[in-house]
Amino acid sequence: MEIMKKISRISIFGGTGYTGVELIRLLLSHPYVEIYQITSRKDKGKRVDEVYPSFRGMLNNKFVSPEDADLENVDIVFFATPNGIAMNYADNLISNGKIVIDLAADFRIKDKGVWEKWYGMEHKSPNLIDKAVYGLPEINRDSIKKAKLIANPGCYPTAIQLALIPLLKKKLINPISIIADAKSGISGAGKNLELKLLMSEAEEDFRAYGIAGHRHLPEIEENLANICGDEVKLTFIPHLVPMIRGIHATIYVDCIENFNAEEIFESFYKEEPFVDIMPADMPPNTKSVRASNFCRISFHKEKASNRLIIFSVIDNLMKGAAGQAVQNMNIMMDWQESTGINLVPITP
Amino acid sequence: MEIMKKISRISIFGGTGYTGVELIRLLLSHPYVEIYQITSRKDKGKRVDEVYPSFRGMLNNKFVSPEDADLENVDIVFFATPNGIAMNYADNLISNGKIVIDLAADFRIKDKGVWEKWYGMEHKSPNLIDKAVYGLPEINRDSIKKAKLIANPGCYPTAIQLALIPLLKKKLINPISIIADAKSGISGAGKNLELKLLMSEAEEDFRAYGIAGHRHLPEIEENLANICGDEVKLTFIPHLVPMIRGIHATIYVDCIENFNAEEIFESFYKEEPFVDIMPADMPPNTKSVRASNFCRISFHKEKASNRLIIFSVIDNLMKGAAGQAVQNMNIMMDWQESTGINLVPITP
Amino acid sequence: MEIMKKISRISIFGGTGYTGVELIRLLLSHPYVEIYQITSRKDKGKRVDEVYPSFRGMLNNKFVSPEDADLENVDIVFFATPNGIAMNYADNLISNGKIVIDLAADFRIKDKGVWEKWYGMEHKSPNLIDKAVYGLPEINRDSIKKAKLIANPGCYPTAIQLALIPLLKKKLINPISIIADAKSGISGAGKNLELKLLMSEAEEDFRAYGIAGHRHLPEIEENLANICGDEVKLTFIPHLVPMIRGIHATIYVDCIENFNAEEIFESFYKEEPFVDIMPADMPPNTKSVRASNFCRISFHKEKASNRLIIFSVIDNLMKGAAGQAVQNMNIMMDWQESTGINLVPITP
Amino acid sequence: MEIMKKISRISIFGGTGYTGVELIRLLLSHPYVEIYQITSRKDKGKRVDEVYPSFRGMLNNKFVSPEDADLENVDIVFFATPNGIAMNYADNLISNGKIVIDLAADFRIKDKGVWEKWYGMEHKSPNLIDKAVYGLPEINRDSIKKAKLIANPGCYPTAIQLALIPLLKKKLINPISIIADAKSGISGAGKNLELKLLMSEAEEDFRAYGIAGHRHLPEIEENLANICGDEVKLTFIPHLVPMIRGIHATIYVDCIENFNAEEIFESFYKEEPFVDIMPADMPPNTKSVRASNFCRISFHKEKASNRLIIFSVIDNLMKGAAGQAVQNMNIMMDWQESTGINLVPITP
Repeated sequence: MEIMKKISRISIFGGTGYTGVELIRLLLSHPYVEIYQITSRKDKGKRVDEVYPSFRGMLNNKFVSPEDADLENVDIVFFATPNGIAMNYADNLISNGKIVIDLAADFRIKDKGVWEKWYGMEHKSPNLIDKAVYGLPEINRDSIKKAKLIANPGCYPTAIQLALIPLLKKKLINPISIIADAKSGISGAGKNLELKLLMSEAEEDFRAYGIAGHRHLPEIEENLANICGDEVKLTFIPHLVPMIRGIHATIYVDCIENFNAEEIFESFYKEEPFVDIMPADMPPNTKSVRASNFCRISFHKEKASNRLIIFSVIDNLMKGAAGQAVQNMNIMMDWQESTGINLVPITP
Repeated sequence: MEIMKKISRISIFGGTGYTGVELIRLLLSHPYVEIYQITSRKDKGKRVDEVYPSFRGMLNNKFVSPEDADLENVDIVFFATPNGIAMNYADNLISNGKIVIDLAADFRIKDKGVWEKWYGMEHKSPNLIDKAVYGLPEINRDSIKKAKLIANPGCYPTAIQLALIPLLKKKLINPISIIADAKSGISGAGKNLELKLLMSEAEEDFRAYGIAGHRHLPEIEENLANICGDEVKLTFIPHLVPMIRGIHATIYVDCIENFNAEEIFESFYKEEPFVDIMPADMPPNTKSVRASNFCRISFHKEKASNRLIIFSVIDNLMKGAAGQAVQNMNIMMDWQESTGINLVPITP
Repeated sequence: MEIMKKISRISIFGGTGYTGVELIRLLLSHPYVEIYQITSRKDKGKRVDEVYPSFRGMLNNKFVSPEDADLENVDIVFFATPNGIAMNYADNLISNGKIVIDLAADFRIKDKGVWEKWYGMEHKSPNLIDKAVYGLPEINRDSIKKAKLIANPGCYPTAIQLALIPLLKKKLINPISIIADAKSGISGAGKNLELKLLMSEAEEDFRAYGIAGHRHLPEIEENLANICGDEVKLTFIPHLVPMIRGIHATIYVDCIENFNAEEIFESFYKEEPFVDIMPADMPPNTKSVRASNFCRISFHKEKASNRLIIFSVIDNLMKGAAGQAVQNMNIMMDWQESTGINLVPITP
Repeated sequence: MEIMKKISRISIFGGTGYTGVELIRLLLSHPYVEIYQITSRKDKGKRVDEVYPSFRGMLNNKFVSPEDADLENVDIVFFATPNGIAMNYADNLISNGKIVIDLAADFRIKDKGVWEKWYGMEHKSPNLIDKAVYGLPEINRDSIKKAKLIANPGCYPTAIQLALIPLLKKKLINPISIIADAKSGISGAGKNLELKLLMSEAEEDFRAYGIAGHRHLPEIEENLANICGDEVKLTFIPHLVPMIRGIHATIYVDCIENFNAEEIFESFYKEEPFVDIMPADMPPNTKSVRASNFCRISFHKEKASNRLIIFSVIDNLMKGAAGQAVQNMNIMMDWQESTGINLVPITP
């Protein structure tokens, strides 16, 4: 007979952006949590399902202003806010025994100077940077179990790191000549009023962007170096795809010795519920993971060179944001890791 | 303490089309069923997740040829096949105590002559036509409970009938001057190799089709007449929308007397888990029901005339096909009606 | 031997919106004009091709602020501005012998009170309202020839009026029971920073909008009444289609007597270069006119009723805006009417 | 006074595919040609505008069967057919003084063995392989002028070669470590009835394909080697983008010495009407060339390495197929090179 799980109270800071909405979708079906409050400065006082009619019939919450948020009677606080918000709340929350999961970037980079340079602001909780655990469960599951503060990884970093770690750890590839040609659906740019995000602009268009330097680059390089023990250098070129969800990374690496990539990855991820290693030369498509928490990875080895091409796909709002955040919560709370996120991809 | 439900064995005939795939998605998460077999003539012997990589890690079935299907050791049989298949199997299955749910059109029309004219073939099980129950739970729930054979409604008919029945039953509108201007995402046309379904053709295009007569018209007219007791005449013009999922019906009716549509619909559907009546003049959008089993309905009453406009949206693969089929199964099996289909719409 | 045409100098007010950009595209290839100046308050001083790289290599203009615009040394002035701008400039321009074509709504409605109510502002040039000619060449060609000020019709009004005028003029249909179920690509909403226009919102979605009253309704009703001599009443429900360009109107009318719609339309439009009457029951698709100035019209007559359904498609930025504006210019300047707009639709 | 150009008679073999249709669109507006005949085995006898309503009002031709084609009274023959057709006709046509432009691959590769391996058939006109000129005007303009048989380049090869030739010719980059991560709109796959081309499959999806070896790879490697005098080795990974038109190549090269890429490209292409070198770090987007014959190229130089990233975009049906074919025709006929293809890109 199953032991009744205590229902934990959830607070979502920043419930109007796309990661916040996806979090609500997931938590609504999660058996051990209650969505206790959702903040929004702009929409405070409104019913959430007035702003998002897709929640009609499933959610009774109203948005509360962050200033009016109840920080006492909650157990778990998610920040689906812009960068630079969670760092103002985390210390107080953790001191009061709450669990904090930041879906933004405040605690993703350990080097404070690097973080401040790329994010253009002073870090308000430098003392917490080292306490924060980088929430990539496939790598840091044991630390996540004991953590109180999770830095939920970025979407590109999740897709790219999962595709590189098994090889870098075994020192099978040159760590400083990696190329990640990455492509993202437009929801990755958030629910922001920018011209380039208008449908008349983005539909029927494809382009590179952020080439002078994307904030996910230092996150990838620092974490890969920490995990693998070597300096890692990437050429990282992101592109915007005329679709809503999905990240596809095409990664070019130089092999130092001969190996069977499929075997190495299969072995490395064999216990992982959300990483799927596909047969070589059968590249994954983003729709095969849409609205699910899976990452699918495949390979192509060039015959006449030492070059290996790795393909990695995720849903940027799921394994790249809200899905991974719930996965981290489940681990921290000692619930079955796939609770509430064991969703079948939507097709077609 | 919850009584353990017996796990029922499911057979899906026609598992490669879009309604079949959606059915698999739903049944994979349904707690009381096991997907026992899935048929496909074309793909027999292949793993299902080889044809649909989105199921990798969640489904071990291989497609079996319909000839090799085990019709004994199953409890529930879904037909997600083309029209004209289920009628060959239903008699035998029902006689052996199985439950049959046909997602195609074989049993949707009671008038055999009308059916044979519109579907261009002889009906092979005329004796079963009267035994089949039209699976619109909001109207026929009691009959569905006792049924052994369900004719699962078409996608357009579901969206249109739910938007008309409360008014027709109360004789508040003229039943022979109705116009249904309906729009469907392209998955409604199935996974068929037709030129007009190619992305290069359908993307960035909008058109009417089937104007000379769509098979859903007699289904709507006959069922509405049966439900409401009057002859019903529709002008039904379907259109193809450059999106994958979703049906939007804009329905124009002439009111016979004054009434408050919102109140009448609210009252009529107040116990329904999947019908959402929205405030007047707040038209529903298809994305608010995407990948969910909801039907959302709203209204606009013209001030200077007796014309009422009704808006109705569903996901054609869910409430318009697989979702409604599972809803019917739940009712027949006396399970909670929303089991496995209480899904939050995907947004964005 | 061809007489050399004098090159006319063009000024475009409001060159950053989608109708302005389309106008630039057309005028760049027009043999008798020179794009002399393009205004933009926001982008003044910038090269146009910096804001719109698609013009690189074809256009040397920089945006000028409207305040700095040269109103002397120009021959023709287009206003691709928001509503309420052209009415401040028109009097002065016309007095100085310029030709003015307003692509916005300032002069589309003759009834000043109606205009002010729908557009929520005072009309600044009421004296010009009667002098302005409604620029629908198929109806008003003779007046356009003599005009100095053109009110270029709205996109929905163009598609809908061309589909109704031949029948209304002959009094073959009931003028007060017309339904226009209209659908527009998203560029019709302009280059505006609104949430509903973001690709993450609009893609894979379909919805009605503006149902409480769209400004194109009084334009249609007044002009049809003026043209046909009877009061005209429409139910007009616009919808947003997840595509960039195209308008599709599905129009339901009640026939007063028997007639062959195809013959009547063929005869009415037989000399028209841009109106294409298609065979009955072969509904036009929006892609068949994409990026061209054509309007294509077809019909379906219900057998068992007096209802006729008319289908009409245009490209909202071409025949619905910039293309029609150039057509009007050509007529006013006595150039061949199709000069510069005789473009083949883009397919696929 | 302009000398009247003789009107040349055009025959298009294979007028139902997307390159054929685009060719018709261009030739309809070309002042010096007449579309004399268009072949289609499948649609013979039908009016072309019955199959493609977008041509209604502009084209009177009927499709003729290739067997019934008049090969005498024509001046220029385009093959927009599948691979392996033009090679059966070319010898006869050229012998009779006709000009032949093959938009398929029959004459793109000089090494007959390589061609036969990649295309899986015997070459029927090996004697013509050397006489055929590879129709990349920016490189082979002088040879094209004298040619009778043009091998019109593939779409990927056009975008990639134009982005590499200036550097390879000057030996500024390592020719055997090039990576071309290429992305194509779906029209590049042709008007073929394949499941993966259905809108329900391709929309909202992104994937790599053809990774085991794409036929454009040997074309690129052989031609670059011929042009530059060194062996060239590419890693070429094509991807499918959920849009209709456009190719985007992201090319990674290792620089052998320091140079200013923008200056070298500006200088190399300074007289070219259709190659646009954009400022560094301003990557081009595919929509900026949509429905036009432009190729736009830009760069990003990594500061901390010797890696240069080159971005190159074209419209696959224009500069990647029909537009380039017309450009070649213009050169061969000694007409102004941009005649009929000096089109402004469509935006939005």
